[in-house]
Amino acid sequence: MALIVQKYGGTSVGSVERIKNVARRVAKWKGKGHDLVVVVSAMSGETNRLIALAREIQPHPDPRELDVVAATGEQVTIGLLAMALMELGLKARSYTGGQLRVLTDSAFTKARILKIDEESVRRDLTEGYVVVVAGFQGVDAQGNVTTLGRGGSDTSGVALAAALKARECQIFTDVDGVYTTDPRVVPEAQRLKKITFEEMLEMASLGSKVLQTRSVEFAGKYAVRVRVLSSLTPPELPVEEEAVSGTLITIEEDADMEQALVAGVAFNRDEAKVTVLSVPDRPGIAYQILDPIADANIEVDVIVQNVGNEGMTDFSFTVHRNDLKRTLDILQKVRVHIGAREVIGDDKICKVGLVGVGMRSHVGVASKMFRALAEAGINIQMISTSEIKITVVIDEKYMELAVRELHKVFDLDQPQ
Amino acid sequence: MALIVQKYGGTSVGSVERIKNVARRVAKWKGKGHDLVVVVSAMSGETNRLIALAREIQPHPDPRELDVVAATGEQVTIGLLAMALMELGLKARSYTGGQLRVLTDSAFTKARILKIDEESVRRDLTEGYVVVVAGFQGVDAQGNVTTLGRGGSDTSGVALAAALKARECQIFTDVDGVYTTDPRVVPEAQRLKKITFEEMLEMASLGSKVLQTRSVEFAGKYAVRVRVLSSLTPPELPVEEEAVSGTLITIEEDADMEQALVAGVAFNRDEAKVTVLSVPDRPGIAYQILDPIADANIEVDVIVQNVGNEGMTDFSFTVHRNDLKRTLDILQKVRVHIGAREVIGDDKICKVGLVGVGMRSHVGVASKMFRALAEAGINIQMISTSEIKITVVIDEKYMELAVRELHKVFDLDQPQ
Repeated sequence: MALIVQKYGGTSVGSVERIKNVARRVAKWKGKGHDLVVVVSAMSGETNRLIALAREIQPHPDPRELDVVAATGEQVTIGLLAMALMELGLKARSYTGGQLRVLTDSAFTKARILKIDEESVRRDLTEGYVVVVAGFQGVDAQGNVTTLGRGGSDTSGVALAAALKARECQIFTDVDGVYTTDPRVVPEAQRLKKITFEEMLEMASLGSKVLQTRSVEFAGKYAVRVRVLSSLTPPELPVEEEAVSGTLITIEEDADMEQALVAGVAFNRDEAKVTVLSVPDRPGIAYQILDPIADANIEVDVIVQNVGNEGMTDFSFTVHRNDLKRTLDILQKVRVHIGAREVIGDDKICKVGLVGVGMRSHVGVASKMFRALAEAGINIQMISTSEIKITVVIDEKYMELAVRELHKVFDLDQPQ
Repeated sequence: MALIVQKYGGTSVGSVERIKNVARRVAKWKGKGHDLVVVVSAMSGETNRLIALAREIQPHPDPRELDVVAATGEQVTIGLLAMALMELGLKARSYTGGQLRVLTDSAFTKARILKIDEESVRRDLTEGYVVVVAGFQGVDAQGNVTTLGRGGSDTSGVALAAALKARECQIFTDVDGVYTTDPRVVPEAQRLKKITFEEMLEMASLGSKVLQTRSVEFAGKYAVRVRVLSSLTPPELPVEEEAVSGTLITIEEDADMEQALVAGVAFNRDEAKVTVLSVPDRPGIAYQILDPIADANIEVDVIVQNVGNEGMTDFSFTVHRNDLKRTLDILQKVRVHIGAREVIGDDKICKVGLVGVGMRSHVGVASKMFRALAEAGINIQMISTSEIKITVVIDEKYMELAVRELHKVFDLDQPQ
């Protein structure tokens, strides 16, 4: 018997039938004596419909009013789910973000949770209620409706689990967990039973977006156990089986003693490489190049500067492919000013990364990675490393090959 | 320059284009220096869609949760209208019932307004904002979302006008005012420039539902001037013209000195007549007949009991046609118990009524009415009178004829 927070996304509550399925799943857990708090998203498509409506009125909708409109999506779902639970004979009560006093800052459409008043939830749980909470939304100190931005319902679930000190936050999605890599690229990809928050963040930064990044950060900060599991399994799956299904995201100490060296292989082909060739190697050069890019609101990822040679150096970084043209335009102007020879762009690249907290205590992961790529005839264009991640930029045509090779070399093809 | 509350119903905000029209109309009034508070309903069809969704989950939806779901309809509209006003360069801010602390009792789906916290509205108005408020909804003392029931947005508008001591509550509808009778029956029907609250209530009780009855009661109680006017006129109609258009519903003293004898002719063919024949004329008989009907939640309207004859009397009343069969079933059981001879039902009847505060001080209205009906060859089955209304029950096939005759006899065909 424990307090469990469950979060169901838009697809899981996308129709009346699916809402009834969610209710059956909740009832099953409740039937085992657990206390249940259920966080839900808007029915799939609903948030987009509401935003489109707003844009018909105002091409750039006022953020405060957009939140007023968008927050209704989740409000509909909580009412419907509470009804579905009652229909199964359970006691249930719904709360909007405002009613629960999910206090956020006032950054409309991308607010951050500051505090949750969990008192009413505790009282309801004591009285045997299933508490149903609207994800994605909160209220600021002035009583304005706020939303947390896309994927914010994950964060709502984790924040509630933290405030209530729940045993676990179960996030039901349309995938059954986190994989060693994308199964569409490597059919042998294995589901990870456990992964640390840091690994999860690094995987996400490489494009493996099972959970919203902010929710993972939040979970890490407050040490909330998060389990990603599938809402597509039959609701009647025994609790004992479901409780250990999916992937548990946890702090490092909770992870297995024999932590695998590498948790997974992530990749991303949405980026383009920009290189500034033969630029004078003097202090402030990186700032002079990147500052105008940042001013243009262009996000820069991997940055590499080689050691200078004869007072000159090459400076490379990656940006989103959609931003490549703008970036090159900006740099053409900067080029003259900083005395660089040439600026070149390449959008036929991809990033491939190895992620694993085990790397910290093991040497040789990088060299093993580079050898595997070399043996596959793949040239490495850029390298960037962090404590638990090694990223390479390569020609995009080798992406699948690189991912498959690395997946095999690091024994990720085998069941855990 | 005055404080004006405007209320727009579902049809008036039924599409993006119509919401933009509402914004233009509001901007026009604001442009004349008035302070504007705008109350809106859900976009037409939306409340029905939400209730249907709830019924798919629970055939008899939990009232608390139904209100959570239904209240989202108005919340969408307030955000969209606030955006549309900003798009026209105005300052605007939206409020849900909960945000404005429209305090109601906890009778979910049919809550009554107890109090409105008008402070934030006043502050916004001082700062030049147009305040946009979600009609139909409130919040109870425990913070639960409540709704006021169908047509509740009218009441929201009137209650706000009362709390803010607004000069006028303008209710924009798809008709351009209150008529002497239904123009579909009598093409000569005239728009009334003024009508008293009491007349309005009596007209409504006879089926002429321009405004929700409760909103009229509320307006009467707090002496709020209410104007019914059309949202179908071009938004560009000059303020001076619009300000005197439609029908003003007001307290008697405000009405014209030369108050017409009769304000209008109302009618209703949704009812059926039930007669209990030859029942012993003794105390408690009405109670014994009507109590089981009330227990079955059947609403009873006109009740007539004739003076007894030889210790026996006949007892008649009307119910909604849909309730006739149930009523007769109940009375068959009661009949034996009270010793009545027979119970008969007739669903081929209609009610026709004359309404006017002028009747109070004028004798002869009833006899003029009965004579007109007699001259048209119409037999009167039941008569019921109040201070400002005379209702007759007649064969439904004479309804149009009766209405036309009375409309003519009381000079309602002429422009005011």
